Amino acid sequence: MLITGASGFVGRPLAEMLLAGGSEVHALSTHHPDGLDESGVHWHHGDLLDPATPARVMADTQPERLVHLAWYTAHGRYWSSPANVEWVEASLRLLRAFAGAGGRRAVLTGSCAEYAWGGEEDLDELDSPLVPRTLYGVCKDGLRRVAGSFAEESGLELAWGRLFFLYGPHERPERLVPAVIRALLAGERVATSAGTQVRDFMHVDDVAGALLAVLQSDVVGALNIASGTGRSVAEMLDLIGALTGASELIDRGARPMSADEPPRIVATVKRLTQEVGFQPSVSLADGFAATIDWWARERA
Amino acid sequence: MLITGASGFVGRPLAEMLLAGGSEVHALSTHHPDGLDESGVHWHHGDLLDPATPARVMADTQPERLVHLAWYTAHGRYWSSPANVEWVEASLRLLRAFAGAGGRRAVLTGSCAEYAWGGEEDLDELDSPLVPRTLYGVCKDGLRRVAGSFAEESGLELAWGRLFFLYGPHERPERLVPAVIRALLAGERVATSAGTQVRDFMHVDDVAGALLAVLQSDVVGALNIASGTGRSVAEMLDLIGALTGASELIDRGARPMSADEPPRIVATVKRLTQEVGFQPSVSLADGFAATIDWWARERA
Repeated sequence: MLITGASGFVGRPLAEMLLAGGSEVHALSTHHPDGLDESGVHWHHGDLLDPATPARVMADTQPERLVHLAWYTAHGRYWSSPANVEWVEASLRLLRAFAGAGGRRAVLTGSCAEYAWGGEEDLDELDSPLVPRTLYGVCKDGLRRVAGSFAEESGLELAWGRLFFLYGPHERPERLVPAVIRALLAGERVATSAGTQVRDFMHVDDVAGALLAVLQSDVVGALNIASGTGRSVAEMLDLIGALTGASELIDRGARPMSADEPPRIVATVKRLTQEVGFQPSVSLADGFAATIDWWARERA
Repeated sequence: MLITGASGFVGRPLAEMLLAGGSEVHALSTHHPDGLDESGVHWHHGDLLDPATPARVMADTQPERLVHLAWYTAHGRYWSSPANVEWVEASLRLLRAFAGAGGRRAVLTGSCAEYAWGGEEDLDELDSPLVPRTLYGVCKDGLRRVAGSFAEESGLELAWGRLFFLYGPHERPERLVPAVIRALLAGERVATSAGTQVRDFMHVDDVAGALLAVLQSDVVGALNIASGTGRSVAEMLDLIGALTGASELIDRGARPMSADEPPRIVATVKRLTQEVGFQPSVSLADGFAATIDWWARERA
């Protein structure tokens, strides 16, 4: 099987799980040289934005299964960067090459940003309106529509995992959870919003586990990859404060809440739990404790 | 300005109108060698499916305005061909190159196949659901979503003209109107369905005129390029029969109506007539008479 973005936040644990399950794992990345690494991953150096890459990698690997995680993810800029459009093109080219090389089942990753935000209802694959507000969300939504129809015409199985809010080791350090953890570990004060916004957080190992379960199932179409449980950002800040023993460094409410910050972004998870049969196994307390340990080791 | 698909069914009259209006017209086509032709069009030989083409053509032409007509159009096959996906990629690449080269206003072309079909209501840009049934329709719909959001982020004006049913000179000979005309001119019998399905037909010169008007306006977003008048296929067959003097060769009802043939596909045209200010000028009788004359000359 082939995995793109294998050296990224989600790709790293997913590749480990695939190897542990006995899969032959071919991984495409711009960050690794060609060759077999000590863990057993067959790396293929390549940039998916280069139009020649997909056909070459498919010829080299002939995968039956594909998990496509690679995308533009530069913190802050990814919401509105034109690179999102390039990744729509690159993802479609990849999927065509995969189908052309005899691929059978693909898992692509979308985002909760495909849904309309701002309501109080949990976001559901069947019932919730798809009105993305950002270029990132529109590109994921547009890719899903085209890729899904192409897969149907081609006899390819395609599942589309919509990721919500992730945390865990190797997250980009500028993002909320790592930024708070790093500051507290460094003994620095952190100014946050009131934190009343409610989000659906899942540890990256559970995200990878869910994607693996989806890959191994025969479920097709869009499904939420999330915990199904909403937590306020304030609750998470409290947890991080308690676990680091540095609660007093958090100046909660010192920063204004953005006017367009949606009050609630939480998934329904019936498809994931009942159709795929996946249950997350990392509690928020354990997950944050492990993540704080990881950042503490990174600092050392 | 730059026009793609300039040697095609709609591109040909549009290029003529642009020249007549005094525009400097650069045309991209796989069917023409580079250079200025006798009509005044600057041709650029190039295939948009080649990833290198857009940047090269933009560097050569530096257009402020773009009309993108090129797409995969092979009769019968275009509904479900994977080439539709390639054209999504190619169109996004083109639009990025256009924006990157300082482009200001683009008109892209979609299709009535973006709408849900099967209802009795006229298809409206604001009110009608977008539930394309075919890969072709999904690809046009997906392209519109991504291109529209990219244009907003980039400060590019983008209008999206949804074409309905076209007829006129240079149409692909396998399609309904030319096929019937050619058979009748050849004295051959034609077996048709009962023809009760109602469609919105517009002469290709009016389609080109409407796109020119859209280009010259500042209207953005999706708008129907159509007559706003429904005609049954039976009515059109009668007209062609009368104009060729060969009505008796039409065996209407000899072929079954396809079970999934939508009863009515007709546009609302408020945006085109009121916001753009365009009125079609070719009546169905005049348009068919001229089209029959054109095919008669082609035969000679």
